[in-house]
Amino acid sequence: MANANGPMGAEGRTVPRATNPMVTPLLTDLYQFTMAYAYWKAGKHLDRAVFDLFFRKNPFGGEYTVFGGLEECIRLIANFKLKEEEISFLRSIMPTCEDGFFDYLRAIDCSDVEVYAIPEGSVVFPKIPLMRIEGPVAVVQLLETPFVNLVNYASLVTTNAARHRFVAGKSKTLLEFGLRRAQGPDGGISASRYCYMGGFDATSNVAAGRLFGIPLRGTHSHAFVSSYMGPDEIVDKALQSHDGSSTCEDFVSLVQNWLGKIQRADSLRGVFSETNQSELAAFTSYALAFPNNFLTLVDTYDVTRSGVPNFCAVALALNDLGYKAVGIRLDSGDLAYLSIEARKFFQAIEKEFSVPGFGKMNITASNDLNEETIDALNKQGHEVDAFGIGTYLVTCYAQAALGCVFKLVEINNQPRIKLSEDVTKVSIPCKKQCYRLYGREGYPLVDIMTGENEPPPKVGERILCRHPFNESKRAYVVPQHVEELLKCYWPGYSDKPREELPSLEKIRHRCMKHLNQMRPDHMRRLNPTPYKVSVSAKLYDFIHFLWLSEAPVGELQ
Amino acid sequence: MANANGPMGAEGRTVPRATNPMVTPLLTDLYQFTMAYAYWKAGKHLDRAVFDLFFRKNPFGGEYTVFGGLEECIRLIANFKLKEEEISFLRSIMPTCEDGFFDYLRAIDCSDVEVYAIPEGSVVFPKIPLMRIEGPVAVVQLLETPFVNLVNYASLVTTNAARHRFVAGKSKTLLEFGLRRAQGPDGGISASRYCYMGGFDATSNVAAGRLFGIPLRGTHSHAFVSSYMGPDEIVDKALQSHDGSSTCEDFVSLVQNWLGKIQRADSLRGVFSETNQSELAAFTSYALAFPNNFLTLVDTYDVTRSGVPNFCAVALALNDLGYKAVGIRLDSGDLAYLSIEARKFFQAIEKEFSVPGFGKMNITASNDLNEETIDALNKQGHEVDAFGIGTYLVTCYAQAALGCVFKLVEINNQPRIKLSEDVTKVSIPCKKQCYRLYGREGYPLVDIMTGENEPPPKVGERILCRHPFNESKRAYVVPQHVEELLKCYWPGYSDKPREELPSLEKIRHRCMKHLNQMRPDHMRRLNPTPYKVSVSAKLYDFIHFLWLSEAPVGELQ
Repeated sequence: MANANGPMGAEGRTVPRATNPMVTPLLTDLYQFTMAYAYWKAGKHLDRAVFDLFFRKNPFGGEYTVFGGLEECIRLIANFKLKEEEISFLRSIMPTCEDGFFDYLRAIDCSDVEVYAIPEGSVVFPKIPLMRIEGPVAVVQLLETPFVNLVNYASLVTTNAARHRFVAGKSKTLLEFGLRRAQGPDGGISASRYCYMGGFDATSNVAAGRLFGIPLRGTHSHAFVSSYMGPDEIVDKALQSHDGSSTCEDFVSLVQNWLGKIQRADSLRGVFSETNQSELAAFTSYALAFPNNFLTLVDTYDVTRSGVPNFCAVALALNDLGYKAVGIRLDSGDLAYLSIEARKFFQAIEKEFSVPGFGKMNITASNDLNEETIDALNKQGHEVDAFGIGTYLVTCYAQAALGCVFKLVEINNQPRIKLSEDVTKVSIPCKKQCYRLYGREGYPLVDIMTGENEPPPKVGERILCRHPFNESKRAYVVPQHVEELLKCYWPGYSDKPREELPSLEKIRHRCMKHLNQMRPDHMRRLNPTPYKVSVSAKLYDFIHFLWLSEAPVGELQ
Repeated sequence: MANANGPMGAEGRTVPRATNPMVTPLLTDLYQFTMAYAYWKAGKHLDRAVFDLFFRKNPFGGEYTVFGGLEECIRLIANFKLKEEEISFLRSIMPTCEDGFFDYLRAIDCSDVEVYAIPEGSVVFPKIPLMRIEGPVAVVQLLETPFVNLVNYASLVTTNAARHRFVAGKSKTLLEFGLRRAQGPDGGISASRYCYMGGFDATSNVAAGRLFGIPLRGTHSHAFVSSYMGPDEIVDKALQSHDGSSTCEDFVSLVQNWLGKIQRADSLRGVFSETNQSELAAFTSYALAFPNNFLTLVDTYDVTRSGVPNFCAVALALNDLGYKAVGIRLDSGDLAYLSIEARKFFQAIEKEFSVPGFGKMNITASNDLNEETIDALNKQGHEVDAFGIGTYLVTCYAQAALGCVFKLVEINNQPRIKLSEDVTKVSIPCKKQCYRLYGREGYPLVDIMTGENEPPPKVGERILCRHPFNESKRAYVVPQHVEELLKCYWPGYSDKPREELPSLEKIRHRCMKHLNQMRPDHMRRLNPTPYKVSVSAKLYDFIHFLWLSEAPVGELQ
């Protein structure tokens, strides 16, 4: 086998192909191939290059980001090989290129590429490389576009999920309902995966549930409710009791019976008169199909006058047979008000009919929820137990892109810099090491980048941390704990041990742990404190030396 | 073969599978399967349902939308069949469901489903069904999530592309450069396809170029420039002349020679002194690889002091050998100013060295472009010939989602309505016909929905068009041309002829034609006039009759 590492890993384990079969070596920009040809033509294609993948600014006005997408990058390189028909296509669009170049393309894989990365699910910050990729310049360039594509949205939507979890609080159930509004099929599938990673509890997306083992949730839609004309439609009306000891032959009548009792009850009188019969039929039918998982959408006609009383009638009938209804979903209107009204009604039912626990019925809310609306609900007061979130979550509506970039920092051991009139766009040169320094209270204090061969920061030893571009911003830190950030995920021909690719469950756990250990002022929604990102004094000096040597000197006229 | 229509079409042609292999019957919300079970359990699964797929509001503050995604929907239903392992997965997550249900799922396909749709690439408006889907309620519900997913982003990004074309003008070249910032791999691939449909000329995305036959564009990145240290690196310096008649043995010296001439020329003096030598080496190397397609990125170090003079030195050397350079790309800074300065420099070169046409060198601009920045460039004046647009285009940053919905409008010939406290969310009931009425000047005037059995509007005959929910908004129209909007794309067991799925090129052509034939005030960016969407007098009356009969009557207390 030509490739020592892929698809068999360093330890002989197979790395599966990318989750989306559309991720192939052709999923890249044409210029990666035209550059590869120019490198090849110049005999420069084997030059050893080091690229950093990083972003410049945290999304959503926040001061943190969660890193996602690493596993998919490793899957791509583990199986990186151009097929004959892909080479034929490239030849057709690059007709002036010499045959030898296509022979070269035919031979390449990623066995000579090394990938170092921060573990997926980590809290990360601007400028610090999320990944460092080393290898022959022509091959590593081909990886730029797919790597940035695979990391950008994954990190953005994981961060968005973490922010929604933060505002909703730990006690609420968060459901990702975004598939229909996502940016294409795998926008939806990726969203389900990365929202779970960022702290959601479940998804509605069956394909994602199957691919990634994410818990699935879902009951019925408005169309289900309006598809019923009335209870006469229900033919098989029998329902066995929960313990199997008896059968209610006419569950429809039992429900009608309970609806009558609710309508006549003093404590509930006047809230409603006639409920919608097509809705009642739909609820009854749903209960007959799922007596153990009875949760209904109550806003097809009118929440307080129809949906909630109809739900209660069916729930009480189920209760007679030993089943415990789950709850309701609200999908329109004033969710704070409606959830409070529904809660009152459930509590009144509990009291009126002596059904213990009925007042604690689960209330799920959906309908264009986002960070702001959940925050507003919290401020108003509400009785929602679970939030179903779609559009704003999965499309990252508040900021639809994270600006990850992939910059050359060294070639053939020569550090390289990319200049720009905009100082935030100047890249930090050199193959670097990155560390997270922790303070006395256990919080991360600062991330620091050093040159590759500098000694690592030591616990208890004072180190100067400098802002990479602002000479007056610097601080001494005495770390209580030092964490090396970049681990080896693909060793190439080096003999470094390769990090395992953990399960989604483990990555999710890391993410929750990381988010919890941040100092709260970095995490708050309003005016969060920026987390410090720095370089060593030695790297600072080198950056500015290189900058001056590369920038042309102007001439005033 | 069990399925009369798929994958073989009505005319015996095969409909290929969905472009993204992740599009399967499981790419749906769990509740579609739980509802299917409840329908099956109630013996209602074969009830004949009619659903409309439509959106409620045009995106990006505009007054039009372009419909995309139809072909992918038809591909899905033509090949809709649950695999045994998919059924096993469903059984594992729905453990209380009876075996008979899974036998039912095993048997279903879309041979009994009918799909009517507006042709892909058409200009479309809110409330009018883009698609009408008829069939057994349980099966059609399963299609809701994937159909909405496939249409939402496709229509949104096509519309975004059309809007970018509108602001850039017909004479500019528009390049889609979004893959790296797209929402996942097929966010990128779909973006390339639908941006081309909406009026872009080419993409950087090789996979999309291959899948859809879209023209590809790309040359090199900043990293290519900074990967060179200086001209000494170039080993093979020979370049054959364009006509093959001679060979320049030292193209590097020829370039250096021209750079000296530019530096010494009176008309260019003082603009720059020393250019960056790593940049010059990179440009020279790129020219040796692609002498017929020499276009370089000129902002790695400094556009006016280094990038443009270096480009010109190489372009003039190429000119000596009979090659015509293509141009430059600007990727940062003040694009208006820099493009004007570069144009002046090219024109000065043309004059100084008598190189006809040099002043017309192509200038491509990129760097976070969107509708607003292109509009601002137009207002300032610029010399850009081509725009490369990425992030804002493909993520639809200005509005990351289109709110397509899928609503039940009829079941077993009974019209159904979905009510809401928000009148814009009330659905328009009944199986409907939809027509576009054209006025004297050839512009579309109004779209009208009628009941299925109403006679169609006739050319030259006055017809009353009513706003569906506002009783005072109505107008008589005498159409000069009547276009029936919904065509049959999947006939089911009916004997209707099936519309062909046209090529991407044909859809793009339809889109351009449709956009051009709209009245200009609907299309302008600032305060566009809303296009009128109406219902017939008969349908109006029926909507309001049904509304009153379904809405519960309140009780004031």
